[in-house]
Amino acid sequence: MNAGARIVPVILSGGAGTRLWPLSTPERPKQFHALTGTETMLRMTAARVADRMRFAPPIVVASAANADAIDAQLDDIGALILEPVGRNTAPAIALAALRARTDELLLVMPSDHVIADPGAFQAAIDRAAAAAAQGWLMTFGIAPDRPETGYGYIKRGAALGDGAFAVERFVEKPDSATAAAYLAAGGHDWNGGIFLFRAADLLAGLEAHAPDILAATRQALAAGQNDGRRITPDPALFAAVRAQSIDHALMEKHDRVGVAPVAMGWSDLGSWDALYALGGKDAGGNAASGPARLIDTSGTFVHSTGPRIVTVGVSDLIVVATGDTVLILPRGESQRVREAAASTEL
Amino acid sequence: MNAGARIVPVILSGGAGTRLWPLSTPERPKQFHALTGTETMLRMTAARVADRMRFAPPIVVASAANADAIDAQLDDIGALILEPVGRNTAPAIALAALRARTDELLLVMPSDHVIADPGAFQAAIDRAAAAAAQGWLMTFGIAPDRPETGYGYIKRGAALGDGAFAVERFVEKPDSATAAAYLAAGGHDWNGGIFLFRAADLLAGLEAHAPDILAATRQALAAGQNDGRRITPDPALFAAVRAQSIDHALMEKHDRVGVAPVAMGWSDLGSWDALYALGGKDAGGNAASGPARLIDTSGTFVHSTGPRIVTVGVSDLIVVATGDTVLILPRGESQRVREAAASTEL
Repeated sequence: MNAGARIVPVILSGGAGTRLWPLSTPERPKQFHALTGTETMLRMTAARVADRMRFAPPIVVASAANADAIDAQLDDIGALILEPVGRNTAPAIALAALRARTDELLLVMPSDHVIADPGAFQAAIDRAAAAAAQGWLMTFGIAPDRPETGYGYIKRGAALGDGAFAVERFVEKPDSATAAAYLAAGGHDWNGGIFLFRAADLLAGLEAHAPDILAATRQALAAGQNDGRRITPDPALFAAVRAQSIDHALMEKHDRVGVAPVAMGWSDLGSWDALYALGGKDAGGNAASGPARLIDTSGTFVHSTGPRIVTVGVSDLIVVATGDTVLILPRGESQRVREAAASTEL
Repeated sequence: MNAGARIVPVILSGGAGTRLWPLSTPERPKQFHALTGTETMLRMTAARVADRMRFAPPIVVASAANADAIDAQLDDIGALILEPVGRNTAPAIALAALRARTDELLLVMPSDHVIADPGAFQAAIDRAAAAAAQGWLMTFGIAPDRPETGYGYIKRGAALGDGAFAVERFVEKPDSATAAAYLAAGGHDWNGGIFLFRAADLLAGLEAHAPDILAATRQALAAGQNDGRRITPDPALFAAVRAQSIDHALMEKHDRVGVAPVAMGWSDLGSWDALYALGGKDAGGNAASGPARLIDTSGTFVHSTGPRIVTVGVSDLIVVATGDTVLILPRGESQRVREAAASTEL
């Protein structure tokens, strides 16, 4: 690392999840919506790394289909890498690392997470950067506040320095008893999918643990288009890259992976229930955004970007409306959104 | 009555109820919607009296605001009487009776009721017409199939002839114990708001029991506009007419009021619950019209003229959507629609 060099943010915007359907669609995924306020998740992500004394303009890795949407939302991008097709996070991060200078520190962030305490995030970046400068591939370990079974966990090992630890092991999504034991024992953090490492170290790690992914990604990039700002890997070659997450391809196998624990009001907003949990409530425990009138209603979440929603005498519902679709399901069951989205595909 | 003269249907289209809000609005009341099939309630009402050997073209009494909508729906109207403001049914029926010839039999019908068995209705018209020709003001007594507390009841008295009776008394909406007793005892029918009488007898009855209403209505009509087909009472004078139902103004007071009992699959569709009760259901007890996808859903009514409604894992809801509003409430509580409509008025 060059002492004092700026960290290069890498914003991953390749997901096309249906967990927040019908608002989130492949054409307009979650990060392009203002779910928690007036700014989109993507713009809020970029705003966290907007200090140009500290961070270089970000490298954005996005679905090619969303290229213009990215440019409409962000006006200070270092490079926009457009994936003709999604191949999960290992190839996406490899693309960014191949674009960066080898000595640059990359801060890899999903584009659709909430971080309520940006100061805590900045402090964790400092701690992670110090370890990354020593060659560690750093993860950010989110301090758990409940026995969540929906995330992977990271067990801390030996201390690397102030507030940074070697990873003892990664744990796949646990059952609820195991999650409760982790919470009680401490030393286990959620894997939030945020990373910080030197580009050269990431590439060396891939070379060691997933050389096929690295070689194929490099080949697709070399055969693709590059105008200096917009970079598009060759579609056929990139489609042939093995799709795998960076966790499975590298982090779980590498011997110099660390974790910087942090409590920063993080949420991946992975469901409508998560968005309900995050926001303010009225006296009846309702959370509504958009045109809504809730009469004698309790524990209900309403999100409308379309019609006015009027409820009378109902409890514990999730109601999500766009201009052409209204989804209604019980609160606590928002994982069933996938069923709804799948069954209504044209 | 002239032997063999045609009966003159009088279709009342003055209501602007909010019981089927948000679909039904003052601008487009219930009768202008196709609630039970592909035809609007208004057109289905007119179709029941479309036999021109038996019925003259109808007199339609409607809100002036809906004049063009009436003409767009009905192409064979004898007269269209336009109320500048609603004054309840006694003035509305008086307007029609004053327009008719005194010896004509008038069949007065709301424009927004369901009659599933039109043959039974025609037979009841015959029975009622025979009594009306003798000077009786005839009501149609709907055979109750449940202890309904939402309607007034008519107790049958002495027989007037085949399937027609003098009315012993009218009963306001009873409590549920009384309604159950009526159902068990028999001889009590629902007052469905359908009438048949000679115009002269109706006018004489009003002269005797509500002379102010008759005089004021006559005055408003005389001072109004009349092109032979469209008739509009003077707005200021008609607004000054005392608003009262024909039941209260006349039927409950008159001594020659009869009832023709009939079982004809009648419903006033007075609520979304009533519409749910009337229609077919899927195996889960759901009734849906318009774009809808019901997944693991039971006992739920969906009616959309706007967005697609997708439900997952819910039970016993009413969901009604138009292009700009979605109403959600528990099934069985659709009387609460009024609260919703009132609270969302602009």
